[in-house]
Amino acid sequence: MKYGGSSVATAEKINEVADRIIKKREQYKNIVTVVSAMGKKTNELLALSSEISLNPNRREMDVLLATGEQVTIALLSMALNEKGHKAISLTGWQAGFRTFGHHMRSKVQSVESELIERYLDEGYIVVVAGFQGVNSARDITTLGRGGSDTSAVAIAASLEYPCEIYTDVEGIYTVDPRVYKNAKKLDYLSYEETLEMASLGAKVIEPRSVELAWKYNVPLYIALNTNEVKGTYIVKEGKIMEKKNITNLSIMDNILLVNIELSTNSPEEINDLFVRLGNENVIIDIISQNKFARDKYLVSFTTTSDNKEIVSSVLKEKGLNFNYIENVSKVSIIGNAMRTQAGVASRAFEILAQNNVELHQVSTSEISISYVIDDENVKKVVEVFVEEFNL
Amino acid sequence: MKYGGSSVATAEKINEVADRIIKKREQYKNIVTVVSAMGKKTNELLALSSEISLNPNRREMDVLLATGEQVTIALLSMALNEKGHKAISLTGWQAGFRTFGHHMRSKVQSVESELIERYLDEGYIVVVAGFQGVNSARDITTLGRGGSDTSAVAIAASLEYPCEIYTDVEGIYTVDPRVYKNAKKLDYLSYEETLEMASLGAKVIEPRSVELAWKYNVPLYIALNTNEVKGTYIVKEGKIMEKKNITNLSIMDNILLVNIELSTNSPEEINDLFVRLGNENVIIDIISQNKFARDKYLVSFTTTSDNKEIVSSVLKEKGLNFNYIENVSKVSIIGNAMRTQAGVASRAFEILAQNNVELHQVSTSEISISYVIDDENVKKVVEVFVEEFNL
Repeated sequence: MKYGGSSVATAEKINEVADRIIKKREQYKNIVTVVSAMGKKTNELLALSSEISLNPNRREMDVLLATGEQVTIALLSMALNEKGHKAISLTGWQAGFRTFGHHMRSKVQSVESELIERYLDEGYIVVVAGFQGVNSARDITTLGRGGSDTSAVAIAASLEYPCEIYTDVEGIYTVDPRVYKNAKKLDYLSYEETLEMASLGAKVIEPRSVELAWKYNVPLYIALNTNEVKGTYIVKEGKIMEKKNITNLSIMDNILLVNIELSTNSPEEINDLFVRLGNENVIIDIISQNKFARDKYLVSFTTTSDNKEIVSSVLKEKGLNFNYIENVSKVSIIGNAMRTQAGVASRAFEILAQNNVELHQVSTSEISISYVIDDENVKKVVEVFVEEFNL
Repeated sequence: MKYGGSSVATAEKINEVADRIIKKREQYKNIVTVVSAMGKKTNELLALSSEISLNPNRREMDVLLATGEQVTIALLSMALNEKGHKAISLTGWQAGFRTFGHHMRSKVQSVESELIERYLDEGYIVVVAGFQGVNSARDITTLGRGGSDTSAVAIAASLEYPCEIYTDVEGIYTVDPRVYKNAKKLDYLSYEETLEMASLGAKVIEPRSVELAWKYNVPLYIALNTNEVKGTYIVKEGKIMEKKNITNLSIMDNILLVNIELSTNSPEEINDLFVRLGNENVIIDIISQNKFARDKYLVSFTTTSDNKEIVSSVLKEKGLNFNYIENVSKVSIIGNAMRTQAGVASRAFEILAQNNVELHQVSTSEISISYVIDDENVKKVVEVFVEEFNL
């Protein structure tokens, strides 16, 4: 079971989580709970570090941030003990999280879960600090975005247990309910669909934890932290009996579409541009490339609109002609069935044409199609897609 | 160098400590700094735990409390890096603190200082979390009262370095300056005198760290955290050239003197009483035992006055006759010279008699005499002793 920061934001909420773990024990003999830092704790620690340095040493940031989850595990284990249950807390290094890579975004190399297993065998509820581990230099490390979900999945993979992720939403919906209130909650999704969704802007779960679950076949369940309503199971595709053609519509707003005119289509030139943007931490999403006249090539890419200034300065520095399209969003439809049913894509294009929606850019994967459209068309597109694909 | 909680209470103060460490580097090539939790941090964590449990699991309290120093080491190391100095933080387990004994009051078994030494060799300023370690079960442990001082002395012992303890007082005085404002600061004290003082109520340093320094011959220096004025050196007795007869007068107030009437002087009976009080965490200080009539024995002991209720209930339960003397203090004079100069003790008694000070109880060690007297006589006794022994 994994509980995020909002589920453990106060002592009272930690007590509620303890009650839910105890209740869960009626169903499962062995429970490992992974928790995040309490509510706004991580932000408090970041604020404290910014009083010392605006560009703090990253190794030390990890030492600082790791205290957040350590506080939560101690309190949750205390709460379980107070309620008469044997429980024990383990930090990342105690739980056997070996990591590699850079500080503040380390990756899990392995979970040496002997200690977790020993405590489970002795009848303890094991409470593990998410988001953290230790590298080969015995430095404390943190896993970056989505780190606690990744910790939970990594333990589940190591123990061959299922993994339940409790959060502040009721599961995964066909469309983000904040955008489209009649969206349906999905009972089942495949790893691939979930991964595609997470990558295309759905915020329920981070792609890396889904990737890990997929790789190790860890059954995932995503549900509201009170567990009062049924959540969403994420499993292998073959296990889902009744498939929908399209399972999800994801929206990513605040998109900046950049069009650049080039007199060459040399891969070196284009690659050099994207390396240069990457060095400035500009994350590029969709890239397309077209010839529109003799020796005139158009390269288009999308990024988030907060990168406008830095992109502008890089392109100017390189002496390139370029323009922006702003106030656009990316709407994606996702579904495993797309792989086998060619009609889905053509039907989507047809609907957009019928509704006079201008497409600035289109990109596809095996199981998704993404359209960059004007913000003012998003509502209409969501409605017609929901209608057409029964979302 | 060791800096306590008040020296690192804010980001600004942490920056000041960083500046002092950097300045100290002009004098010493290798510096290890041990720090406590920031200001009121430990109290905040205790308050948080009390929302979960009034009698929290002690293993988990250690996990919780250890985050306090971890925050400080990260911030101090960030500050040193920000100022252009190579620095690295180490938690208790990273620094090699192996402990044994009970949670919340563990003892240092050893400091496996290889990692500290490696980082020193590589030119790092090493910043270590005081107060914490790890036991043989890989549990995080804390060292209890005076723990950070003990951590600093233990590292100094392991590396054969001197140890400087920076605090919010200017050093060790002949009398607590809060009690007697003309008290003199001592340039030198022996380990034994310091230990006796610390045990007899002086609050500058905890006895256990002095004991450890004495055992491993670690030169100690206690000074104001700004290091603007010269502090006090604590060294082996033979190293102090000019000795004072009496180096210190310590006062312990809020004393409760308990007189118990017994019809036997059987050691079992008396031992049983003190074991029973010990089980209730009543710390007994001076004990005296006298026969005052045929089959009538008087056992007197002192404890702190907050133990009145629990002592009362234990004595009633055992059906004993007893009375209290309240509003008394213990005044002690301490000095290595007492060992060789018998005149000191008799002179002290003479002065008290001349001043009509009633003595409720007297106890002596090789280098100290303690008097339990009425609170109303404390001021007078301090004045005459200060005068007589040039304190």
